[in-house]
Amino acid sequence: MQTPVKPNRPRAREIGVQIGVLPTGKLNGMTDVPGVKVGHVTRIVGEGPLSPGNGPIRTGVTAILPHDGNIFCEKVTATAHIINAFGKSIGLPQLLELGNIETPILLTGTLNVWTAADALVDYVSAQNPGVYSFNPIVGECNDSFLNDILGRHVQREHVFEALETASHTNVEEGVVGAGVGMTGFGWKAGIGTASRVVQVDGTAYTTGVLVLTNTGGASDLRIDGFPIGEHLTPEDISEERPGSIMIIVATDAPLSHRQLTRVARRATFGLARTGAIASHGSGDFVIAFSTANRIGVSPPESPPIFHDEGALSFLFRAVIEATEESIINSLLKAHTVVGRDGNTRHGIPIRRILEIMELQPPEALSTNNIS
Amino acid sequence: MQTPVKPNRPRAREIGVQIGVLPTGKLNGMTDVPGVKVGHVTRIVGEGPLSPGNGPIRTGVTAILPHDGNIFCEKVTATAHIINAFGKSIGLPQLLELGNIETPILLTGTLNVWTAADALVDYVSAQNPGVYSFNPIVGECNDSFLNDILGRHVQREHVFEALETASHTNVEEGVVGAGVGMTGFGWKAGIGTASRVVQVDGTAYTTGVLVLTNTGGASDLRIDGFPIGEHLTPEDISEERPGSIMIIVATDAPLSHRQLTRVARRATFGLARTGAIASHGSGDFVIAFSTANRIGVSPPESPPIFHDEGALSFLFRAVIEATEESIINSLLKAHTVVGRDGNTRHGIPIRRILEIMELQPPEALSTNNIS
Amino acid sequence: MQTPVKPNRPRAREIGVQIGVLPTGKLNGMTDVPGVKVGHVTRIVGEGPLSPGNGPIRTGVTAILPHDGNIFCEKVTATAHIINAFGKSIGLPQLLELGNIETPILLTGTLNVWTAADALVDYVSAQNPGVYSFNPIVGECNDSFLNDILGRHVQREHVFEALETASHTNVEEGVVGAGVGMTGFGWKAGIGTASRVVQVDGTAYTTGVLVLTNTGGASDLRIDGFPIGEHLTPEDISEERPGSIMIIVATDAPLSHRQLTRVARRATFGLARTGAIASHGSGDFVIAFSTANRIGVSPPESPPIFHDEGALSFLFRAVIEATEESIINSLLKAHTVVGRDGNTRHGIPIRRILEIMELQPPEALSTNNIS
Amino acid sequence: MQTPVKPNRPRAREIGVQIGVLPTGKLNGMTDVPGVKVGHVTRIVGEGPLSPGNGPIRTGVTAILPHDGNIFCEKVTATAHIINAFGKSIGLPQLLELGNIETPILLTGTLNVWTAADALVDYVSAQNPGVYSFNPIVGECNDSFLNDILGRHVQREHVFEALETASHTNVEEGVVGAGVGMTGFGWKAGIGTASRVVQVDGTAYTTGVLVLTNTGGASDLRIDGFPIGEHLTPEDISEERPGSIMIIVATDAPLSHRQLTRVARRATFGLARTGAIASHGSGDFVIAFSTANRIGVSPPESPPIFHDEGALSFLFRAVIEATEESIINSLLKAHTVVGRDGNTRHGIPIRRILEIMELQPPEALSTNNIS
Repeated sequence: MQTPVKPNRPRAREIGVQIGVLPTGKLNGMTDVPGVKVGHVTRIVGEGPLSPGNGPIRTGVTAILPHDGNIFCEKVTATAHIINAFGKSIGLPQLLELGNIETPILLTGTLNVWTAADALVDYVSAQNPGVYSFNPIVGECNDSFLNDILGRHVQREHVFEALETASHTNVEEGVVGAGVGMTGFGWKAGIGTASRVVQVDGTAYTTGVLVLTNTGGASDLRIDGFPIGEHLTPEDISEERPGSIMIIVATDAPLSHRQLTRVARRATFGLARTGAIASHGSGDFVIAFSTANRIGVSPPESPPIFHDEGALSFLFRAVIEATEESIINSLLKAHTVVGRDGNTRHGIPIRRILEIMELQPPEALSTNNIS
Repeated sequence: MQTPVKPNRPRAREIGVQIGVLPTGKLNGMTDVPGVKVGHVTRIVGEGPLSPGNGPIRTGVTAILPHDGNIFCEKVTATAHIINAFGKSIGLPQLLELGNIETPILLTGTLNVWTAADALVDYVSAQNPGVYSFNPIVGECNDSFLNDILGRHVQREHVFEALETASHTNVEEGVVGAGVGMTGFGWKAGIGTASRVVQVDGTAYTTGVLVLTNTGGASDLRIDGFPIGEHLTPEDISEERPGSIMIIVATDAPLSHRQLTRVARRATFGLARTGAIASHGSGDFVIAFSTANRIGVSPPESPPIFHDEGALSFLFRAVIEATEESIINSLLKAHTVVGRDGNTRHGIPIRRILEIMELQPPEALSTNNIS
Repeated sequence: MQTPVKPNRPRAREIGVQIGVLPTGKLNGMTDVPGVKVGHVTRIVGEGPLSPGNGPIRTGVTAILPHDGNIFCEKVTATAHIINAFGKSIGLPQLLELGNIETPILLTGTLNVWTAADALVDYVSAQNPGVYSFNPIVGECNDSFLNDILGRHVQREHVFEALETASHTNVEEGVVGAGVGMTGFGWKAGIGTASRVVQVDGTAYTTGVLVLTNTGGASDLRIDGFPIGEHLTPEDISEERPGSIMIIVATDAPLSHRQLTRVARRATFGLARTGAIASHGSGDFVIAFSTANRIGVSPPESPPIFHDEGALSFLFRAVIEATEESIINSLLKAHTVVGRDGNTRHGIPIRRILEIMELQPPEALSTNNIS
Repeated sequence: MQTPVKPNRPRAREIGVQIGVLPTGKLNGMTDVPGVKVGHVTRIVGEGPLSPGNGPIRTGVTAILPHDGNIFCEKVTATAHIINAFGKSIGLPQLLELGNIETPILLTGTLNVWTAADALVDYVSAQNPGVYSFNPIVGECNDSFLNDILGRHVQREHVFEALETASHTNVEEGVVGAGVGMTGFGWKAGIGTASRVVQVDGTAYTTGVLVLTNTGGASDLRIDGFPIGEHLTPEDISEERPGSIMIIVATDAPLSHRQLTRVARRATFGLARTGAIASHGSGDFVIAFSTANRIGVSPPESPPIFHDEGALSFLFRAVIEATEESIINSLLKAHTVVGRDGNTRHGIPIRRILEIMELQPPEALSTNNIS
């Protein structure tokens, strides 16, 4: 199958949907947090009936790196929060015990996680000869509706490519990387991102969120509170599948593990505002890290810590807004994909949203092939 | 001060705000769950400057009883979920270890909790001579803006009265019981309730929620997704105080402790949809119980358990919808209260909400003194 | 009843039992941690049959203060670990959320906890006018076998006395303060303490433990691994009661909340080594604090933090050894007490332990009335 | 390298060490629990200097199956408890959310876990066509001192072999399966097992424990309380490595997830009694399952549940005793192994233990080559 011409679908702000009150970072994405890199490898191969092990392939992998250095040697403060644990995320117990991550974070399709984790160990161990223990971090959602999931088509080379091509620039959204085979609120979904900047004691801190959306009931969707799902659902929700969402939070605010955990828990609020209910079969995990503290470096860093715990409320709001907007972006940016057995997820029709919400279509929309 | 003539303010559905898709119980309140009783004692005494220990008093206590029997002898399955633990709730560790409650639940103002717990032990121990260990359950929000909180004006007799006058009928909402001194989204708030009915395998199960609202930023309020707080805030938010919310969930669905915990965690989603962010200083707790299992009775009961874990998703939705609606009710029903030092919280102006949301005023509204 | 002449019973080291390998602090007790103060109020009144509300009284209260200052203004890093939560401890949710304590810690008999917490609020609020929210910390064990527990004989004045008479000197052990009515391994038990000093990067850190022992099966007792309970049990264990243990850990090591939590969890290991199994009815809680960080002071303190996480293992060992020794001390130091209804708990016979363990009786033992 | 003639080393009871008071099952091992199967694949290949990827190989895999059926279709109630989470266990979040396991449990060397999990998915998915989501459970300890750990020498075929050869008979202990490369208390360690039988209301319930021991400081070892490590340490502890222990608990007692969790937490007590301190680098996990409830079968099973929560104390004791004895067995049964780079772990010298503990050597000992 040829890679389709990718339509240039808009983000939330490009159609006039402005979620929350805080200012965004420059890119309004995770890479606004200084040092953070994101890389995607997209695997779209074949079409037609499912042949387990052979395709069609609609999957991928997304890598998030906290900084440019050797992450094992310069670990960063991290935490996780579990919203609903029907999921296969890897590495969370040690992350919670030690309060840090020592590898990049990978996102991928459910059944790829173990291969991806093993490849991540290859990657990190090559950088750290003589080390015999690594805690790879991998999250997932289930892409079996579109993808030959049993084929586990994310292999070592795809993981390495995602890690090595990760960049500080704009994060590609929609049908890309781990997002290739995902569904959200009955529509095609995938990767989305957003960021917020807050001021604490005269210092600006940036918080970026990246989501892998695979959750939400079709009639439940809300965009900035507006009940879109009451007005607009796909015609062909042939089959409801267990969903999931992975929410990755990065911040340069110098938080302790405990403080970061409080912040990470607020991602649930952003998720809730999109209408999601975290149904039984949804594996909804938050992984958060702060780039402000590097652990293991010599001499030890002692960056300023938030002494005023009350200032965390600013970061709570940042993560709520950025999570909500990331999820909306992960829908708006995702175009229609036809997968195995002809299974199809449609990109949410932008023009219909504009009509329903009584928004003005942006000029760009008229010049490309957005439905 | 004379008790003011209480205006007959409407609930959400009475002004045309219909939250969610599930049917409500008959009363659309916690007492729709068979057997559950709610009682309030309202303490409004004095006015003028604060004289710690002497008033003015703007506080109260609310009692929730899972059934008519001796609750210590016939405990019910219970759980708790902590959204943000800046709060003084009593009894949660044992509740979580043993998965049950053995006393009624009390809600009150923050500094009353220990006196209330002690009184609750009096109440339960009188019913159970020869028993020397009880785990009273008490939740709280901080009513210090309106109330002489240091005076701890909920005493033993008020606790007993709330317990003894609790009834299966309609739950009074707004400025009543524990809700007397509370603030929500900058407006007067208090007690609110709602319920939902779901069908599982042909059986109807009722889930009721009761909230004590004392949380939310003025500009953050959303009613059914509509950003009311962007259009309408009180003129005189003289002082932001740490907030809190207590969310009590009752269900007659026969759930294990683990299943009930999954359900209780969904209350966060209902809270999030009102615009709350659970800021640093907010003590936000969920306590949930199922009336379907009585523990300690002889012969032991073995009621049907949800074997189809997937059916929990119906209950997730029920608790989300009922929590959101309870919070809105706790605002709409709460009239203006002037407290200590003349501190005032205004009832949210119903007519303005109708205008902003373009809703038709119900007939009842024209015949009473609602602003 | 006259207060009996208190026999001068020995601590573990005084009979040649040396637990572990680390050096102790000067006093081998919790007050070795600089700044920490402990105070006891012992309530022994009346004898004869139980008359609920009237006695006999065999209870008390123990206060632990992290430092001499205003603890609400200068909070200290703290955590809790729950071994078995059949208990009524107060204040743990907020302690865990914010990672600090803002009041002294009280220990007392089970049904006194709410009155004690309320009194503690009186104490702290008097020091902090204009503050309307406090999170008192109170732990408990059940003293109903010897005491008129329903009488709740620890009142406001006893709490204040314990707080005001607390001192930096030797901690009294055995039948004192909260320990008056307790039972351990079938014998009279009560308060015990011990400490350890570890070196990290050339700096000495002191960790002190104080326990309130009310747990353990008679035949399970081990002293430094030696199965004493196989050889020596009381003749008259008329009635097994639900037990409990409170374990308070203080350290001057500069630990984050996460690190302190890891340390606190090791108290379980010390408890296990005494033969306890934390049976169903045992409420076994650990509360730990570090005096190295004062939170809320201005300008903010930034003391050195343990950058080498591996160094925590030294503190793990310290808390294990000090917990085990504290429990043994809480038995050895406790003399026989006759309580309500003539209920009696015997002091463990020291001479029999010496015989069984083939230890030399210390000289002091021959000159006083130790059995 | 030739497989060495395996010396027939004794278990604890064979040298007169009898831990605890409860009766054992017939085999005194995990397979006493009806239906439970255990299989090992042992990988000992090559000798000499480490050549990463090529060996020498000193690793293996151990499989535990709750019953003979299709475990995905007939899941069993399960839980996990984390003692110290410096470890890479796979599958725990979903296990804790849903309270069950749906695959066999694998144990192996640290860096094999992802390959093993992936292979386990192959195994389970082959039995369950059309299913696209599985939660494999894999635990690990680090065998890098003896093994070419980076080589990840447990591959798909070894996992399948362990699963397919698992049996209901005696569990082989010591240097076998996942235990090949492990160290405990400075000595060679590996797999150990034990069981206990308790009576509740006239019914006998069997609890079996299987451990993979890789933890413990050399001088800390205690055998049934006796401080062996004070008298006997290896001469050549060239290098301390981060340790770990995996503790698997099986029971046929019909426990809810909450009850099983309470039981699982008691494994810590058994571990503590061996002298272990769960040092910073130790990844110590408990995974427990009950065979009494099969989830997902049709019609749903409703087996008797423990209505008397107090009866759990019997199971607490069972798991404590069986854990302690399993660890001791995992040492006693493990013979000396020479691994990569000539690194050597010695089997603990049985005769020296007998001398130190003043035990009579069993007759069998004189007839084989036990040191």
